[in-house]
Amino acid sequence: MRNKIKTIAFDADDTLWVNEPYFQEAEHRFCVLLKDHLPAQAVSRELFQTEMKNISLYGYGIKGFMLCMIETITRVSNGTAPLQLIDEALALGHDLLQKPIELLPGVAETLEGLHGKYQLVIATKGDLLDQERKLKQSGLKDYFHHIEIMSNKQVTNYQKLLTHLDCSPGNFLMLGNSVKSDVLPVLALAAFAAHIPYHTTWMHEQHDDTIEHPNLITLTNIADILNHLD
Amino acid sequence: MRNKIKTIAFDADDTLWVNEPYFQEAEHRFCVLLKDHLPAQAVSRELFQTEMKNISLYGYGIKGFMLCMIETITRVSNGTAPLQLIDEALALGHDLLQKPIELLPGVAETLEGLHGKYQLVIATKGDLLDQERKLKQSGLKDYFHHIEIMSNKQVTNYQKLLTHLDCSPGNFLMLGNSVKSDVLPVLALAAFAAHIPYHTTWMHEQHDDTIEHPNLITLTNIADILNHLD
Repeated sequence: MRNKIKTIAFDADDTLWVNEPYFQEAEHRFCVLLKDHLPAQAVSRELFQTEMKNISLYGYGIKGFMLCMIETITRVSNGTAPLQLIDEALALGHDLLQKPIELLPGVAETLEGLHGKYQLVIATKGDLLDQERKLKQSGLKDYFHHIEIMSNKQVTNYQKLLTHLDCSPGNFLMLGNSVKSDVLPVLALAAFAAHIPYHTTWMHEQHDDTIEHPNLITLTNIADILNHLD
Repeated sequence: MRNKIKTIAFDADDTLWVNEPYFQEAEHRFCVLLKDHLPAQAVSRELFQTEMKNISLYGYGIKGFMLCMIETITRVSNGTAPLQLIDEALALGHDLLQKPIELLPGVAETLEGLHGKYQLVIATKGDLLDQERKLKQSGLKDYFHHIEIMSNKQVTNYQKLLTHLDCSPGNFLMLGNSVKSDVLPVLALAAFAAHIPYHTTWMHEQHDDTIEHPNLITLTNIADILNHLD
């Protein structure tokens, strides 16, 4: 692998910086809002169902999450919840949209070590403006040749990215925390993937992590990639 | 101008297809929802204020519009509106997200006439997934070399697009219906702009249309560009 890679793409949320723990914190607070109507676990289940129902309309990101919290309030309460809960769900979303960017350990050093030797890009999904905000606040922008904010991370989305970068699959390595989004579609294109498991994963992204493939490496942390390339 | 242009970028909403009339119809129905609390004109004003307050958090697009309708319901009703109004606002948004794509007159013929002679791109703002959906449904995708969905249309956003396309400002022409978003920032870069006024414009995009500039042409309809280039 080490002689072939020319372009390295990084997932952003939970690969470069903290994300899912913020959503889980928001979801926990959301469950408390509805505690008079349903136990927390049932609220989580209802919220997830609302998200899956709407994902083809909303896509990924915080604004869709906010709309799903609101829809869940009206359904779970049978229209009886006070309107104040809606304001509180909006406030939870506004909090998420203004969370500070907390880089994961080793990220800056790893990018510093790779920069100049490889073409570095970001391949992330979510709301356009929100991902731009996070990238700007991360201080990492100058390491990247290109930022691709994708509506989804399926094979066709990666195919488009490779065409856009004029990069052969055999010269492309994707790093990320999601087997489903960052690994499988990349392997399907005969490109390379590096999986960096994160301690927590959104249910929609969960996947059996025990896959083996000649083009896949598993890292314990992001800095570990330097040992595989240099 | 005609000898210099190599790349032509098109705004999408209200330039290639109908958009603002759908928002205005949704807003009209939204005002009816709140008629027991405020007259329609005042509801529109409140909604616009909510949108302006949140635009730096939400950006452009239907999901942000939905969140702003919901916030406006809770504020305008002082928390007294029935929760059913929230469901109705969500339904208005879902309708918007599933509107059919209605091409404006002359669009297909114009793209057909320019395709192969110029590098054609789309430069639009809004929600990522929603703009992708509209483009796909439009049947126009194959005319375009590149689709840029932008979080905003300011000088820096166009600068990035030009860099990305490796295009000099003097070889770039932007066509669109918004003086504020499609004309002024492009002229500021010393590129060319073609303004195609549309019969209705969102208040946030409204601007004195009577500007004159050597790099600006005003068209009565999109097909008119063929007379300026060929």
